Amino acid sequence: MAINRLQKLRPIISQKDLDALLVSQLENYRYLSGFAGSTGWLIISNSHTILATDSRYTEQAKQEAQGFEVIQIRGELDNWLPGLASDLQWHKLGFEANHLSFAAHHKLSETIKAKQLKLELIPLVNLVERLRSIKEPAELELIIKAVELTDAAFEQVKATIRPGVTEKEVAWEIESFLRQNGSEGVAFDLIVASGPNSALPHAQPTERILHHGEAVLIDMGARIGGYCSDFSRTLCLGKELEAASSQLAAIYSAVLEAQLTAIDKIESGMTAAQADQLARRVIEQAGYGDAFGHGLGHGVGIAIHELPTLSPTSADLLTDSMVFTVEPGVYIAGLGGVRIEDVVTLEKGRAKVLTKSKKDSFQL
Amino acid sequence: MAINRLQKLRPIISQKDLDALLVSQLENYRYLSGFAGSTGWLIISNSHTILATDSRYTEQAKQEAQGFEVIQIRGELDNWLPGLASDLQWHKLGFEANHLSFAAHHKLSETIKAKQLKLELIPLVNLVERLRSIKEPAELELIIKAVELTDAAFEQVKATIRPGVTEKEVAWEIESFLRQNGSEGVAFDLIVASGPNSALPHAQPTERILHHGEAVLIDMGARIGGYCSDFSRTLCLGKELEAASSQLAAIYSAVLEAQLTAIDKIESGMTAAQADQLARRVIEQAGYGDAFGHGLGHGVGIAIHELPTLSPTSADLLTDSMVFTVEPGVYIAGLGGVRIEDVVTLEKGRAKVLTKSKKDSFQL
Repeated sequence: MAINRLQKLRPIISQKDLDALLVSQLENYRYLSGFAGSTGWLIISNSHTILATDSRYTEQAKQEAQGFEVIQIRGELDNWLPGLASDLQWHKLGFEANHLSFAAHHKLSETIKAKQLKLELIPLVNLVERLRSIKEPAELELIIKAVELTDAAFEQVKATIRPGVTEKEVAWEIESFLRQNGSEGVAFDLIVASGPNSALPHAQPTERILHHGEAVLIDMGARIGGYCSDFSRTLCLGKELEAASSQLAAIYSAVLEAQLTAIDKIESGMTAAQADQLARRVIEQAGYGDAFGHGLGHGVGIAIHELPTLSPTSADLLTDSMVFTVEPGVYIAGLGGVRIEDVVTLEKGRAKVLTKSKKDSFQL
Repeated sequence: MAINRLQKLRPIISQKDLDALLVSQLENYRYLSGFAGSTGWLIISNSHTILATDSRYTEQAKQEAQGFEVIQIRGELDNWLPGLASDLQWHKLGFEANHLSFAAHHKLSETIKAKQLKLELIPLVNLVERLRSIKEPAELELIIKAVELTDAAFEQVKATIRPGVTEKEVAWEIESFLRQNGSEGVAFDLIVASGPNSALPHAQPTERILHHGEAVLIDMGARIGGYCSDFSRTLCLGKELEAASSQLAAIYSAVLEAQLTAIDKIESGMTAAQADQLARRVIEQAGYGDAFGHGLGHGVGIAIHELPTLSPTSADLLTDSMVFTVEPGVYIAGLGGVRIEDVVTLEKGRAKVLTKSKKDSFQL
């Protein structure tokens, strides 16, 4: 698997006229090598496939990164990379400009100068991220398993959620279910946000008790075989809505229509900004444009947030075999918020929804 | 609380001759402002205390960051920071060089040039991190609570751990206990590593079944009120050691002696490298120097790894009110590993051990 991916990467390295590429971002090196430790660098040239890590991880790296030459390093990048590049007579080395700190780059440059090496550092962005955004069938299968698990967790929570329990209790119930049913940790900190808390798009579960007639926003993700799912639903407990909830019910309708419209009309070949616009227009027409403050969605894979980025300014091109979320939301401070989120994949030019949980009704 | 911390920071900003400091690192801005969202920037001058975040977090920021002016931003740093600096007539802006990517810095510099602003970006390292390394009494109290919780979790696991269960089952039991007893998530991915897996210092729990006479290395952390604990013990299940374990028993003795020696002799005023050397010498004399591949420990606070860094090359100065781990380890590929880790604080010049769990015996 990693071999295929390297075969896709190497022509890009050649095309950029590089002797080698330094990969420093965790999900990127995991994708290319299989190595899942928290510290490591890949150095990939046409003839070398090197994984550099420290002594805490060398054994794990040898087990996980088939086909890679594992070298044990000490200290920071400037301590070992210039010597390696010099030994291998590399003169142009690409690096991930979004994932190397200013300080690390500066120290590396200073060391190269001090050693009088002819080594040029070339900043690059999203090289591996763009490969990762197109999912292989085996990757899609793992994402589907993770999506099925969040669907199952939602069924479970629907059966037990009720007024009187706290946000934290609901969050723990969901997390326990996910973990006991095969999720490797959770893909991100779960959100269970009730009443006014649901107006915070990234709320953390609190001791607040759930009440009748309020919004309860649930956002969760599972991880299976290293691949994430991402799932949001907003519920209203109890059949009789309070006065405060009639506005929430109207918001729910607008968000749902925006989400269904986007899913229906997204096509391969669109930019991610055009996809975002499909949903945004519906919400704007309902009068809530200012209250939809985030993008429509994001790619999902080894990382919970990856390419493509669906936002009003994104130039990412949507293509078949991408997997991403469609999750419009409207948030009114003091009242509450509604977000509805599915994971979709682009197949034969159209969005196929992977998430199965119902979303047609606000009321539980 | 945040006000005190700003009062410590502002003289440093003046001393560096800066108009303002940009704080981009999550734990750093949380420490200074109380804001715990995942995206934000502080901009601190003598007369301004600004928290910039996007619409997902503005409500939360207003609730959490008392005394800060919350501004809502869109897009990346280069989209809003140059305008702000220009409005406030700043000419020298410090930034966290370890926590700003090469790409973000580059885009910001290009925008400043294009707008012909007189704004110089000054790279700085560890300014806030050094403040964070000296704990206030209230911070120490929270760390002690987190340490007490890991002690309690270990008591629980000792009562139920036995040959026949898997690493994953033990890990889930520990995590459930921590979470159900007040831990906010876990401070890091738990390690339960048995037999040869314990030779991987950062192993992930697997389906491997625990056996008699093998090492089982447990490493866990809790989080209370935002503050972490970190805890490791290595056990051997069953009273009759297999032949393979006599070497492990010898390693256990060496690691324990190294840990006790370091705790006994660490003093305020030492460098962190000198502290590391106290333990390393004992392990070297026992013949396992090459198998102790990591540093002696690390600071613990809002982050699970923070200053001081106890390693053979660290120049960090140990001072009173620091809190850090003392965790020597020896790892033999194929056989197994031993690590013993306590959290200590420096008080009146000496190390006071916060962790209470026994460590005198390898056998459970």
